[in-house]
This record gives sequence, C-alpha cells and structure tokens, in this order.
Amino acid sequence: MSTHRFAVNVTPKPGILDPQGRAVEGSLDHLGISGVTAVRVGRRVELTVEAADEAGARAVVERLAGELLANPLIEAYAIEPIGGASSTVSPPPASAGERHA
Amino acid sequence: MSTHRFAVNVTPKPGILDPQGRAVEGSLDHLGISGVTAVRVGRRVELTVEAADEAGARAVVERLAGELLANPLIEAYAIEPIGGASSTVSPPPASAGERHA
Repeated sequence: MSTHRFAVNVTPKPGILDPQGRAVEGSLDHLGISGVTAVRVGRRVELTVEAADEAGARAVVERLAGELLANPLIEAYAIEPIGGASSTVSPPPASAGERHA
Repeated sequence: MSTHRFAVNVTPKPGILDPQGRAVEGSLDHLGISGVTAVRVGRRVELTVEAADEAGARAVVERLAGELLANPLIEAYAIEPIGGASSTVSPPPASAGERHA
C-alpha cells in the first residue's frame, strides 16, 4: 500500500455564471487594482488516498471528484498530484508532483 | 504589456477547523469509498492579469490574494501560473506553467 496526496481543482465551466468571480471583479476598484479580468472562483479540495499504487489512488480520486466534489452539469475538475506521496512497500516515485508556491 | 493567467489556491491553515472537509469525509462511506483521509476544502481563484511583465503581474496577484482572496488569519495561499500567457510586445516566456489534468 502507498499513500498519495492529490488536489482536485473544481472550476465553473465556461459560460456558467460565476457570481463570486463577479464579486471579486467588483472589489478591484476599491483596492486600486487594475488590469485584472476573467476572474473565476472555484474550489480546491486536497486529500490523501491510501491505495495499492498511484493508478489505484487516482481512480479513487476520479470517482470522488465526479460523484461528490464537482457538479458535472456546471463544473469542470482537474486532478493534480501534490507533494507528500509515500509508500510502505516500495520507494516513492521520483516525480510525485510539486506544490507551486 | 503582456497578459498572464494565474490561479490562487486558498486552503485552511493546518489546525484550523474545516467543516467542509469533515462533510466530505462523512460522505465517503455512502459512496463506498475507503482509504481517503485528511480532506481539506479551500478555494481556487483563476484570473487574468495584464501588466508590464510577469513579475509585475505576479505582484498584483500577491496583493489581491493577501488583501481580498484569503483571510490571512486562517487561510494560506499559493500562487500558480497557468496556461494562457500572451504578450503584445515580446514573445511569451518559454515556460509559462501548465495546467495539470
């Protein structure tokens, strides 16, 4: 068994109304910020999965994203491996994804 | 001027209560999913910035993230360049970040 950490990035599909994004855009003037457009607000879910291997872990995350975390009618999701993969059987893969800072 | 697209990933700081994460964990049994732990639910904000260069664009995003998108008392944020950088003056940088799928 090995342990993998993933992020699921859920964003409103193109064309779907995004009131939170509009609210952010509406606040920019008050902050004196210009040049910012096309703001879209979604969710980011980070989770740890214990599975036989990374493919198995990703399959679990795919199911969770499609059935619980995202509404497929109005939202798209992307699955991203993030740091922290570890294994109790074999060494962790050389590239387990990294967090952007 | 050049145009850059960024994502700001906002997550609850370690130790901060995350009721949405607990709700996801509470739903796993109903879905017949096991092996998923440490669920944290945050926000993902994607936006386009027009600025003189990428450093200038990132400075705008830093300010926006710290002053509007994240509550620094309870949330951490990470800024991630995503696909779609373009320029009206010079060619886009070779590495403009990529979206994980």
